Amino acid sequence: MKPDGGSLIGFGSSGLGGAPFKAFDPARNAPIEPTFQSATTEDVDRAVQLAAAAAPAWARLSGPDRGKFLAAIADKLEARSDILVARALQETGLPEARLKGEVARTAGQLRLYGATAARGDWLDARIETARPDRQPLPKPDHRSLLRPLGPVVVFGSSNFPFAYSVAGGDTASAFAAGCPVIVKAHPAHPGTSEMVGRLILHAVRECGLPEGTFSLLFDAGFEVGQALVQHPLVKGVGFTGSLKGGRALTDLAAARPEPIPVYAEMGSINPVFILPGAIAERAAGLVEGLYASSTVGVGQFCTNPGLIVLERSPAAAQFVKDLATRLAATVEGVMLTPGIRKNFVASTTARAHLPGVKVLAQGNAMSMCSAAPVWFETDAQTFLGNHALSEEIFGPSSVVVMCQNRAEMLAVAHELEGTLTATLHAGAAEAPAQGELVDVLAAKAGRVILNGYPTGLEVSPAQVHGGPYPATSDGGRSTSVGTRALYRWTRLVCYQGFSDDLLPPELQNANPLKLLRMVNGEVSRDPVA
Amino acid sequence: MKPDGGSLIGFGSSGLGGAPFKAFDPARNAPIEPTFQSATTEDVDRAVQLAAAAAPAWARLSGPDRGKFLAAIADKLEARSDILVARALQETGLPEARLKGEVARTAGQLRLYGATAARGDWLDARIETARPDRQPLPKPDHRSLLRPLGPVVVFGSSNFPFAYSVAGGDTASAFAAGCPVIVKAHPAHPGTSEMVGRLILHAVRECGLPEGTFSLLFDAGFEVGQALVQHPLVKGVGFTGSLKGGRALTDLAAARPEPIPVYAEMGSINPVFILPGAIAERAAGLVEGLYASSTVGVGQFCTNPGLIVLERSPAAAQFVKDLATRLAATVEGVMLTPGIRKNFVASTTARAHLPGVKVLAQGNAMSMCSAAPVWFETDAQTFLGNHALSEEIFGPSSVVVMCQNRAEMLAVAHELEGTLTATLHAGAAEAPAQGELVDVLAAKAGRVILNGYPTGLEVSPAQVHGGPYPATSDGGRSTSVGTRALYRWTRLVCYQGFSDDLLPPELQNANPLKLLRMVNGEVSRDPVA
Repeated sequence: MKPDGGSLIGFGSSGLGGAPFKAFDPARNAPIEPTFQSATTEDVDRAVQLAAAAAPAWARLSGPDRGKFLAAIADKLEARSDILVARALQETGLPEARLKGEVARTAGQLRLYGATAARGDWLDARIETARPDRQPLPKPDHRSLLRPLGPVVVFGSSNFPFAYSVAGGDTASAFAAGCPVIVKAHPAHPGTSEMVGRLILHAVRECGLPEGTFSLLFDAGFEVGQALVQHPLVKGVGFTGSLKGGRALTDLAAARPEPIPVYAEMGSINPVFILPGAIAERAAGLVEGLYASSTVGVGQFCTNPGLIVLERSPAAAQFVKDLATRLAATVEGVMLTPGIRKNFVASTTARAHLPGVKVLAQGNAMSMCSAAPVWFETDAQTFLGNHALSEEIFGPSSVVVMCQNRAEMLAVAHELEGTLTATLHAGAAEAPAQGELVDVLAAKAGRVILNGYPTGLEVSPAQVHGGPYPATSDGGRSTSVGTRALYRWTRLVCYQGFSDDLLPPELQNANPLKLLRMVNGEVSRDPVA
Repeated sequence: MKPDGGSLIGFGSSGLGGAPFKAFDPARNAPIEPTFQSATTEDVDRAVQLAAAAAPAWARLSGPDRGKFLAAIADKLEARSDILVARALQETGLPEARLKGEVARTAGQLRLYGATAARGDWLDARIETARPDRQPLPKPDHRSLLRPLGPVVVFGSSNFPFAYSVAGGDTASAFAAGCPVIVKAHPAHPGTSEMVGRLILHAVRECGLPEGTFSLLFDAGFEVGQALVQHPLVKGVGFTGSLKGGRALTDLAAARPEPIPVYAEMGSINPVFILPGAIAERAAGLVEGLYASSTVGVGQFCTNPGLIVLERSPAAAQFVKDLATRLAATVEGVMLTPGIRKNFVASTTARAHLPGVKVLAQGNAMSMCSAAPVWFETDAQTFLGNHALSEEIFGPSSVVVMCQNRAEMLAVAHELEGTLTATLHAGAAEAPAQGELVDVLAAKAGRVILNGYPTGLEVSPAQVHGGPYPATSDGGRSTSVGTRALYRWTRLVCYQGFSDDLLPPELQNANPLKLLRMVNGEVSRDPVA
């Protein structure tokens, strides 16, 4: 299996040929074969028309059948892991072990969402039976559940070539919810994207699913993505990337004649508050933990801890000094793309010149597309007075904010913008008294972490990967990771006055799928009496 | 209790005085005392600041305490029903019996949403316990649930002075979800709004809740509403009204530096498909049912059946003739406002001049602010070729579309825009074969009705009052009626690595609130072992 450079449109491929581009090996600073063709306007329309034609069959597809399809994709990813990882390694510069782990996570995620679809409890099936003799008016029979939204567009991210890309969480959750998917491949790993896309199409054929279930479109620029978001038959969008990119798509979608939801997971500063007791109890462990969390993947994580908030003290000063020493000795790492590296250099250079900000640690980065940590230190008043310090720098850079006292720490917490995560490190004795700070952090973040680190995202039913704007475009009402991710691709439908023969099986009296349902206000797997 | 004309801001009232206006009695064609003062920019900011200050206390308020507050409002509405109905009758021209019923429905809705909050199962509490020995990485403890969004702005509607106004479904569901509420009163019933607002404030004091829990702002125009939607501390908006008004607010909210959700329930055409078997079996009942559903409340319902689709036949022609006779004999009814009546006259006059459209029935309306049914008839090709015929006319007007055959009926169904409801009337023998049509209607509507009528909206856990755009601004992903309405005012928060002492009670091991929770993938009310 080798990429050939063409968009995958239904069961065919594009022969129309938009602007050509190549993948780029950031470690070797050289382009990689083959040439990819950007999709054309006609390609976009064909992919969406096929998806819209497949949507009714997908809406009828049973949960167990969706589960089988997702498991088939997972099996294929794992079976071809070596060849996929080899290509991704070239295209991203990410280490082999990380990429292997990411393929495994992606497969696990597909299976978990597939199992959720197969079980069907997530559909929120509700039944209120008729009471024809109710006074003053008879009560009709009402049965409702979540139904698929229709064709969904997914934008692959640059930093996770598997888990947040072609067969990643957005695609997996949209399929699990019953929606056809069109992926706009990220141009930083087109070869990996095409190979994963072909595996998905194998699974489509193997499971006897309709053409249009899946398409994959390439683009060197932004036109294809814009055309997809504006296409009248597209009903929802998933995106992981920058605030600028996510907001542009959200604005486009909101301005459509028929606005559609964009679930954009965007930048995040991921503050870490470290209380004196934590430093007193485990300074060395904290240095090591923060170092690892902030340098893994060359800092190219949406959960990278970008802000460290401390109360000034001799112990805190020593802690910061030890952390700086550790950071300064970091070996450079290859960044995903020359563009990301260029932005990193420009942003850290600009930050270094801000008044009241000093460079805390600066590692050596010699190679063309590499970076080493660049950390800053400032005081709370400078931080609070300069919004630029709240902006995420994508890569291994964080700001240490030294507060005069506890009140300043709380003030910093209160002024935070929305973020995916917020972390609190506290000593055993002081932790129970942190209710107020925890409440403030829970108002700012989708996930609040006690004595842990934001990186290393568990995919589970309880996970929340979202947060108030600008962490996500929808204000943290949804999650892009975990089984609740399915809810994003649904709408509610109620059937009034229907009998079993015209109802979907999920709502039939006998409860043939054994779903957990709410019947006349009580939740059970029982049939309707 | 008499209205005095000032906005209610926290526990105080506005003394600043914007543009004055009066309520208007549409039956007598005369203004009603007293004079109301539009809120000022300062009033808006003060109301929002108070709500934001109350939000943390509200987020901590237990479900049972929210339930008590909502029940207290319900009690007060019922206790003062007579005086409220008397004022509403003057301001809206709606009949007394309807208004009494609406107060009862509004109280019932407050209690149902309060009971939902008290029970707490809706919070979707999920727990994944830690597995420190998991390979290759330990699994952290994750616990997540829905948390309140923060200050919510509610726009009262014109056509339901109780159920969709100051203490209506949006307000009740936002309180139940734990959010402070600021209502922008509809200028068509300011006196009713103020009296209901005062009752809510009595309940706020009685329950010992903070100032800022509730405010009520008046405005003769649009400035106050716009300022509320644009205020940085407002986190969500509920609206019931016209497509034009709802879209304007949605666009404003989407363009904010921090976009926020607007749940706008807007216009809807509510198609009714009548198959030959239904006419053969029960033509007289159908005439009576459609007549009642389309003339109740002078057609001023968001679920008014605005499109009747039939297959041409002698029986269908007779059915339409009988319906027209019944409609033409309708006594005129008072509309809500002179503006609504003016729009009704202008829209029906314009529609009467469309090519291919004939007036089917035209009742007599002599009084200043009254209307009688104006129905139209056309063929499927004319309907499909002219989008203007798909637009809702607010009031007692509908379009009968005669189709040549079944294929044309399906074509009409396929071309429908999003709508709150879609109804199918079928005979006993033909009903089971309507799966395809039902699927098409379920893709267009939030509620599909078999052999019933769209008006008469049940408030229950299974109800869906929403639908694809333009029925609602969010594409039917939510409902404004029924207990699922609470979900609109929430965001997700996950706690990682916390122990009981810092967790909200909903997520503590012992399950002190006896919630239905998902623990390690299984749903139960059990404590965590």
